[in-house]
Amino acid sequence: MPLPLRRELAGLTPYGAPQLDVSVRLNVNENPYPPSAAVVADIAADVAVAAAGLNRYPDRDFLALREDLAAYLLAESGVALAPAQLWAANGSNEVMLHLLQAFGGPGRTALSFAPTYSMYPEYARDTATTWLAGRRETDFTLDPDVAHATIAEVSPSVVLLASPNNPTGTALPLATIEAVLAAAAEVTGGCVVVVDEAYGEFRRAGVPSALELLDTYPLLAVSRTMSKAFGLAGARVGYLAAAPELIDALRIVRLPYHLSGVTQAVARAALRHAPELMAQVGSLRAERDECVAWLRARGLTVADSDANFALFGTFDDARAIWQGLLDRGVLIREVGPYGWLRVSIGTREEMAAFRAALVEVAAL
Amino acid sequence: MPLPLRRELAGLTPYGAPQLDVSVRLNVNENPYPPSAAVVADIAADVAVAAAGLNRYPDRDFLALREDLAAYLLAESGVALAPAQLWAANGSNEVMLHLLQAFGGPGRTALSFAPTYSMYPEYARDTATTWLAGRRETDFTLDPDVAHATIAEVSPSVVLLASPNNPTGTALPLATIEAVLAAAAEVTGGCVVVVDEAYGEFRRAGVPSALELLDTYPLLAVSRTMSKAFGLAGARVGYLAAAPELIDALRIVRLPYHLSGVTQAVARAALRHAPELMAQVGSLRAERDECVAWLRARGLTVADSDANFALFGTFDDARAIWQGLLDRGVLIREVGPYGWLRVSIGTREEMAAFRAALVEVAAL
Repeated sequence: MPLPLRRELAGLTPYGAPQLDVSVRLNVNENPYPPSAAVVADIAADVAVAAAGLNRYPDRDFLALREDLAAYLLAESGVALAPAQLWAANGSNEVMLHLLQAFGGPGRTALSFAPTYSMYPEYARDTATTWLAGRRETDFTLDPDVAHATIAEVSPSVVLLASPNNPTGTALPLATIEAVLAAAAEVTGGCVVVVDEAYGEFRRAGVPSALELLDTYPLLAVSRTMSKAFGLAGARVGYLAAAPELIDALRIVRLPYHLSGVTQAVARAALRHAPELMAQVGSLRAERDECVAWLRARGLTVADSDANFALFGTFDDARAIWQGLLDRGVLIREVGPYGWLRVSIGTREEMAAFRAALVEVAAL
Repeated sequence: MPLPLRRELAGLTPYGAPQLDVSVRLNVNENPYPPSAAVVADIAADVAVAAAGLNRYPDRDFLALREDLAAYLLAESGVALAPAQLWAANGSNEVMLHLLQAFGGPGRTALSFAPTYSMYPEYARDTATTWLAGRRETDFTLDPDVAHATIAEVSPSVVLLASPNNPTGTALPLATIEAVLAAAAEVTGGCVVVVDEAYGEFRRAGVPSALELLDTYPLLAVSRTMSKAFGLAGARVGYLAAAPELIDALRIVRLPYHLSGVTQAVARAALRHAPELMAQVGSLRAERDECVAWLRARGLTVADSDANFALFGTFDDARAIWQGLLDRGVLIREVGPYGWLRVSIGTREEMAAFRAALVEVAAL
């Protein structure tokens, strides 16, 4: 009696970076700062209140959380949104799943531009959506003409643009995103453009958010997460801003009560501490810029980064560098194009440990 | 520019019972007892510990929770399981999604026997799985010969059996489940049989759990939830027991880190209070049996129930009865075959209010 596993899943192993017990973990773009005592106390207090009513199903439409997210985005990006323009799920990966369930699926194509986030093809696979990757330039930017031509050729129903891009750190200019939106508007049957701003808060001064385009483009969706800037990777809260009609489509495919009452409480408690948490983002951005400058001063090539990580190289044997760092207690990620490595931005002490180890391993 | 909504979703509204502000809510099979002060305190304390590390991703494989779930099932059903035989997700609806993503999908069929849980066709739709429903007998039991013939005809890759069934309350004898397993074993390409025991803890004395069959049938999966017996609908924790190879397939399609560190902490805290929570299950079972007897004594037909609800009827105008009860502050559910109504088992006081209202409305 065979297990009727779908053919495309045969032989696959579950996605995920190695979870190793190492002192300096700079491999999965986590925020190195744990929630402060004040944040922890507020989370525990709010969860206690929620726990007293856990025998009842939670608010399916998490309206209070959507209001709080709208208020946060107004403060962060200056863009005013109504709660009906917000969506949330268990991590931005579930947001992506909802998007592809509603707008992708059998007979449809999702398109992105590589190198980009390695989970995108998995979201496509898990929703039976055809996956295609166009190309970025050698400096990891996206050429608007290439994007236009690829979209015209492929006729996707969903385009995924990570900005800042993972694993390269590259933020797209609004003009490029608008070029993609213009090309998408020519797709027969319609095409949703998703700008994945998981690392949006880390963008450098003067780099705009695609949230600013929402008023103009009804088929644009901008996703964010509380995993990175808010330092809440373990809480699994991703969210999305888009037109209310687009959000309504996600409401049809979401599992009822997908966002627990506890998750809603944790997210709302953390959002009350946004100013404090955003100050940490400022430190991480400064640390990131220092790290990029240091790597370049040592003769390495580093992609411009608007995220909380840096992609650097190139190495003849990137694997050996990765292993050498690991042997010295520093875990980074071997990901992206051949010869490159990605380091997440940690605390001041962690970055010093990374630099010291790299000097030894790469003989800088 | 049209929104590229999938054709099968056009015009649909999101799933969910009306969320009305009514004093007696007996409509969505919630547990009427909120978590005790002791449970709330333990949840808050454990969440505080988890919150201090929320900047890191949670254990993707939630091994500690799987150990606790195995220990609970051993105590509840006398069936010993290894942690590698357990799976969990955000509600048993996400467990079902994982099952259909791994074993259903385009070109494949999921089969159940109606009347049954109204979400099953939605799980199929959301995974592009063909949905078919065979039939139950007029007393809502499943005829093993009918089941065998239907499976042979349909060649499903997944069979979903709710036992106790929602909305009827009907538990399947193990012999019936084994007949289904035998028929499924004849399906070319393999067929997974999922016994959905969301209401398993409410089964009457002497009614066995399908967990007892796991050792014998490698393509059997038994799902449970903490929403009902544990009174944690708001926490969104469903789980599944099956062979390790079957669980490994779910690990491929699950979104990485789908179960938050907070959700894991909440579930583990509640599981420590299982004995106390199971005592409440005993009260609810007694209340259920009284309700069934009372309805029958008033001349109504009531399906045998092993769940925390009762399906009763039949009424020429069930909608009018439902509305009459609502007018008196009692919210039940109009669901299932024509002419029937379903009432969830609440507290002693809530059931008294239900009976009093029904006597008036139905002129009993």
